[in-house]
Amino acid sequence: MAVTPDSTAVGFIGLGIMGQSMAGHILDAGYRLNVFNRSREKAAALIERGAVWCDTPGDVAANSAVVITIIGTPADVEEVYLGAGGLVQRAQPGAILIDMTTSSPSLARRIAEVAEAKGIAVLDAPVSGGDAGAKSGKLSIMVGGPEAAFAAVRPLFDVMGANIVLQGGPGAGQHTKMCNQIAIASTVMAVSESLAYAKAAGLDPQRVLSSIGAGAAASFQLTVLGPKMLDGDYRAGFYVHHFFKDMSIALAEAESMKLDLPGLVQAKRLFQKLIDEGHAQDGTQALFRLYDPTAEQ
Amino acid sequence: MAVTPDSTAVGFIGLGIMGQSMAGHILDAGYRLNVFNRSREKAAALIERGAVWCDTPGDVAANSAVVITIIGTPADVEEVYLGAGGLVQRAQPGAILIDMTTSSPSLARRIAEVAEAKGIAVLDAPVSGGDAGAKSGKLSIMVGGPEAAFAAVRPLFDVMGANIVLQGGPGAGQHTKMCNQIAIASTVMAVSESLAYAKAAGLDPQRVLSSIGAGAAASFQLTVLGPKMLDGDYRAGFYVHHFFKDMSIALAEAESMKLDLPGLVQAKRLFQKLIDEGHAQDGTQALFRLYDPTAEQ
Repeated sequence: MAVTPDSTAVGFIGLGIMGQSMAGHILDAGYRLNVFNRSREKAAALIERGAVWCDTPGDVAANSAVVITIIGTPADVEEVYLGAGGLVQRAQPGAILIDMTTSSPSLARRIAEVAEAKGIAVLDAPVSGGDAGAKSGKLSIMVGGPEAAFAAVRPLFDVMGANIVLQGGPGAGQHTKMCNQIAIASTVMAVSESLAYAKAAGLDPQRVLSSIGAGAAASFQLTVLGPKMLDGDYRAGFYVHHFFKDMSIALAEAESMKLDLPGLVQAKRLFQKLIDEGHAQDGTQALFRLYDPTAEQ
Repeated sequence: MAVTPDSTAVGFIGLGIMGQSMAGHILDAGYRLNVFNRSREKAAALIERGAVWCDTPGDVAANSAVVITIIGTPADVEEVYLGAGGLVQRAQPGAILIDMTTSSPSLARRIAEVAEAKGIAVLDAPVSGGDAGAKSGKLSIMVGGPEAAFAAVRPLFDVMGANIVLQGGPGAGQHTKMCNQIAIASTVMAVSESLAYAKAAGLDPQRVLSSIGAGAAASFQLTVLGPKMLDGDYRAGFYVHHFFKDMSIALAEAESMKLDLPGLVQAKRLFQKLIDEGHAQDGTQALFRLYDPTAEQ
């Protein structure tokens, strides 16, 4: 049965820029909302609008039929879900837990297994679309887990996202997000190298974009990040250090599947260098820094 | 002054699949057309429609105010333009020579220099858009060379292309095409690796495309070549061996500019392997063969 604002208290853990927008949409849709965040001040705006503060993630779980998390790293996810006093320990029987963090597929499967043994359903449901998608409620949501749980919480996904696909069993959402990040990784490299060549060859790179931007070389990365690279605008849409975390997860999974991904390996190496040079807080388009022969670092 | 069907005999050298379509458009527009091709039988259809056969490239040049070439490799271009009895030697004073082969930017500059000294203008004008673009007259044409010559032959470009940009002086067209190929190279790798991961992880790759195909991972290569990879349809839209030639040119130019392009290096290495395994005549989407854990080679 699908969740409704009348029947269901929703918990939300992780009120970063993405989380605040997503939780706001759930409040807007009329659900009662319990919230927790590591630093409480980020909950202030939601509390003002009626959300109820809980002192621990476990307290959120104890008071909510559905709990959504979007937090930092796989280590954080493991602690919040499986740690003492965590979500799996304190969730109500029949509860549905949804992890929307981009995290490890293997960990997602492990959490689902432990939770299922206690009669708790878990969905892994990472997103793409960034701050803008979270704000407009148009995220792409990639879901793994049991079909019944997916169907039940579909109304909640609908207030946060526009392209919502159940990709398979536990871990399938995370695996799909990895496919997304792998496709991005070498494409950022492709765009950086193409524009660096244009500059080195003395071309007008904007004019080059007018020739190559709509054909076989076309990509979201070329269209959206290309002009930022050329402007030297390295402000973060998506942080280098977040992307690096995702590439690390993808590569670890690929290795465990004995799958060789040399493009991903090369891209990860370059992003490592970018971080070593102090640019972890830049947006991913800052990869261009490593190539641009005319840039001041 | 712009060329017109009344004033101008056009020469066309290189009647492969692309060349035949392009020369056909020029005939359709009413120009007198002189043609040469290494194997004469490929000229038959055009001759039937009124084109005049010439026995050598030099003969084409001696009888045409504008000569267009779209031939195999830089070595072929060098021979046809600079060889004894070639285009530069036999072209009329005031003639305009247009090389639409994807070839070396350095060679394009050298040919332009030699020709200019004899009062002959040369444009380098490689294209993208493939067989389909040539057939429909909607190629993207990237041009390098003198502005006056570009303006004069613009009507000819207009019958062959839809996106026609003068990118700069001699060699700029070829350099721009290299930007296009560099942007493609790592993106094909990105798409192959993403879909190989999807298959290895046991996902339904078509469903994965429905999640990742329209966001930050989106690309022409993902949309157009991705489904072919999944179908094991490796028939050539664009040949592996042609793409390998282009990557080799791009890498040589980058090296001469002291520009390090590790993504391109990695992609070229993989395409070399693909050729070594006997797949030179496949389309570029065959890169997926190297990754696909379930494929029969």
